[in-house]
Amino acid sequence: MASQAVTPQSEDFSKWYNEIVYKADLADQSPVRGCLIIKPYGYELWEAIKSGLDRRFKATGHQNAYFPLFIPESFLKREAEHVEGFSPELAVVTIAGGKELEEPLVVRPTSETIIMDAFKQWIQSYRDLPLLINQWANVVRWELRTRPFLRTTEFLWQEGHTAHATAEEAEAETRQMLDVYADFAINDAAIPVIKGKKSDREKFAGAVHTYTIEAMMKDKKALQSGTSHNLGQNFAKAFGIQYVDENNLPQYVWTTSWGLSTRMIGAIVMTHGDDKGLRLPPKVAPYQVVIVPIYKNDAERTAVMEAVERLSRELLAANVRLTIDKRDSVSPGFKYNDWEMRGVPVRMEVGPKDVEKGTVALARRDIAGRDGKQFVPQDNLAARVLDLLAEVQAGLLQQAADFRDANIHDAASYDEVKQIIEAGGWARVWWAGTGDDEARIKEETGATIRCFPFEQPGGAGRCAITGQPAAQVALLAKAY
Amino acid sequence: MASQAVTPQSEDFSKWYNEIVYKADLADQSPVRGCLIIKPYGYELWEAIKSGLDRRFKATGHQNAYFPLFIPESFLKREAEHVEGFSPELAVVTIAGGKELEEPLVVRPTSETIIMDAFKQWIQSYRDLPLLINQWANVVRWELRTRPFLRTTEFLWQEGHTAHATAEEAEAETRQMLDVYADFAINDAAIPVIKGKKSDREKFAGAVHTYTIEAMMKDKKALQSGTSHNLGQNFAKAFGIQYVDENNLPQYVWTTSWGLSTRMIGAIVMTHGDDKGLRLPPKVAPYQVVIVPIYKNDAERTAVMEAVERLSRELLAANVRLTIDKRDSVSPGFKYNDWEMRGVPVRMEVGPKDVEKGTVALARRDIAGRDGKQFVPQDNLAARVLDLLAEVQAGLLQQAADFRDANIHDAASYDEVKQIIEAGGWARVWWAGTGDDEARIKEETGATIRCFPFEQPGGAGRCAITGQPAAQVALLAKAY
Repeated sequence: MASQAVTPQSEDFSKWYNEIVYKADLADQSPVRGCLIIKPYGYELWEAIKSGLDRRFKATGHQNAYFPLFIPESFLKREAEHVEGFSPELAVVTIAGGKELEEPLVVRPTSETIIMDAFKQWIQSYRDLPLLINQWANVVRWELRTRPFLRTTEFLWQEGHTAHATAEEAEAETRQMLDVYADFAINDAAIPVIKGKKSDREKFAGAVHTYTIEAMMKDKKALQSGTSHNLGQNFAKAFGIQYVDENNLPQYVWTTSWGLSTRMIGAIVMTHGDDKGLRLPPKVAPYQVVIVPIYKNDAERTAVMEAVERLSRELLAANVRLTIDKRDSVSPGFKYNDWEMRGVPVRMEVGPKDVEKGTVALARRDIAGRDGKQFVPQDNLAARVLDLLAEVQAGLLQQAADFRDANIHDAASYDEVKQIIEAGGWARVWWAGTGDDEARIKEETGATIRCFPFEQPGGAGRCAITGQPAAQVALLAKAY
Repeated sequence: MASQAVTPQSEDFSKWYNEIVYKADLADQSPVRGCLIIKPYGYELWEAIKSGLDRRFKATGHQNAYFPLFIPESFLKREAEHVEGFSPELAVVTIAGGKELEEPLVVRPTSETIIMDAFKQWIQSYRDLPLLINQWANVVRWELRTRPFLRTTEFLWQEGHTAHATAEEAEAETRQMLDVYADFAINDAAIPVIKGKKSDREKFAGAVHTYTIEAMMKDKKALQSGTSHNLGQNFAKAFGIQYVDENNLPQYVWTTSWGLSTRMIGAIVMTHGDDKGLRLPPKVAPYQVVIVPIYKNDAERTAVMEAVERLSRELLAANVRLTIDKRDSVSPGFKYNDWEMRGVPVRMEVGPKDVEKGTVALARRDIAGRDGKQFVPQDNLAARVLDLLAEVQAGLLQQAADFRDANIHDAASYDEVKQIIEAGGWARVWWAGTGDDEARIKEETGATIRCFPFEQPGGAGRCAITGQPAAQVALLAKAY
């Protein structure tokens, strides 16, 4: 844990991000190119993300399973778009047990192919459907440029894979799981994501269409934070997954897949963090409260620690996740900075005067300085702390939503788009362009279509780029 | 889910085991040599094992982290015994991103080397010690002969890695974590493991010594179910991990590692299973209770399902994990067999007469037939079920302990050892032999020293093999 100064966001956001990741003790660099070591504090954050998602997956009828890390090379080649999308990024095992393998094994970049092969065995009749599986796993994509959590060679994620009897059910599942992601992002991670559909150019390799949750980072860049794919019958046909329907006729299934990864950690850092460090939403914070005891001598220490232990027991009984910073080698001020860097939502200070008066000081991380600090009675402390944590949770979401809304601008022409993108915002435009138009915009401005948001203005307009009549708006932005 | 007949244990235990793994829906074969697909029912069992262990790791001050899947080949070579032990089993990535790698990357068979490299960066002073890390991960060992859960090319496990200031602390940690494993095995998995020390011949590659928990399977073979290694300063010296002590002098740290894997699923199957299928200890069972509604017509169905829903709500409120088998396509008898195959500890039957009389039937899986079945009032059902689950948990442990104790025999001579091993038991002998003696015994009888149990008779004896004075007893058995 270190509390050195950090490059301000306004000076160099990218540098700020890298410094925070390491200084807040989320991760460390590894000797393997593009691979990160997730340190305990970062891993606890991931565990909170996992448990928030896993609970929602199970509540919507999904079951976890585990499939092999290795995929025979021939499997990947069965779905043409899929192999084209992933083959440049593959890590390949060619030697095992001291011998060259007859067929090389690919380290999974995603598991559609090996899971579809299993689905083919498991699905015979309509009674076997829907089949709703999720896997928590590591995957490997050999990326040229990597950034901590946002794009790493190996990363941790979950990948859902489901099979359905009808196109409608598969589409409903694809939408449902995007809703699950959005619900988690908004209510747990306090990230006001925008739900929408990807353009054909940006969809998953092998999908009919891809839905996404897009988040605005504090540098106004977009971060794709979770995706849900309707795979139609593409994989069913490539792998021959058929079921016998109620009329005893063979039918191909309809499949979906959906994934969310450790990239979410990066989203949390870049949505909420400030120049003092992380600001973690209470629902996912490893510690919701840090207690800093303050004393100058042994007599004070005894009195203060007695109160600290008593109050911490009350908070633990109310399921508040907390830590007590008992270090004697550093000052209270150092501790404040240290825990601000780590983004603990609420700091509780207990000194000799608090013991005398039966109070404590509570400082919230989402509001800096005196405005965020209050002195409260020790009576009924757990209820007060729970209320305050809910306020911090809501406060972080509100700040992020305000920031997002202030930085999305309507644009009626390509010139306006260019101005908005250059100034670092998102442009909302009526869109009737082609994939080539997208490619040109990307080349000229660095922006891509993040999504066609589900929330549409209605009616029709004129495409900002082509001038053609347009039935929907798109969000354009630079992205990670 | 299938309920076909199973090969009896007495006829062919090995065949019985393989059939149960697949018929109880724990796992499926995969197209990748030696790799298993862990199906939802098996994965839920693994999740229960994980959570039972993770809770204990955190209670003893350990933190989870995550390190890269890939290890540079040169890292493995730094500890001489370690590389010698693992190199025949490695899977190696030689191509990534379409290019041949300059240095091949090994898919981790275990993570000592890459974690020690990180420890070197993280440890500077005595204040950084002890460092107590655990990782939940997949590992790969290219095994020649594989068996579901017991020995697979890829498997899931946890690996603890710790560093300490003194030899005493490292030894205490090594023992503590073995105690944690034994506590989990005995109290959660109902497996009466024996704690002991491995012989030098059987210790971990790179360890000073290895402790083990050994379990007796129902075919009387031993299964090493978890190991804890005192690594001394072997890895500290190989990786240059030094700290500055309180006198400002550089010292090498002392390290430990300890692991338990999905092999534990195999241990549960082979400790408790019978010819009808699995018998799962309630503490780790995905479902503790299955409710089978019984009715012949719609009127009965309505009355029965009302009671079932009401009672299931009561049980869920008491945190009982349950499922209701609502299938209309199969008979109650089929359902009984089906859930016996899956080893659900308690079956609850609710029929029209039960509704009338305000009763239910409870059948426990650990006691077959009428002896295990009772009719109880619906009043206060949750408390009754919780009591019964505790009885089943204790019953399974007692049965396994009785079986184990009945099959460990003292042997005073090599002839007696041979007889005991041939009859399929474990031989307990005074031991003063050498590694060569061990090798000869293995060749001649198939048995190995499973451990020198911590629980020793005291005093001294005469080695059953060499006739020399001996200070300790060893347990000899055939093993998986």
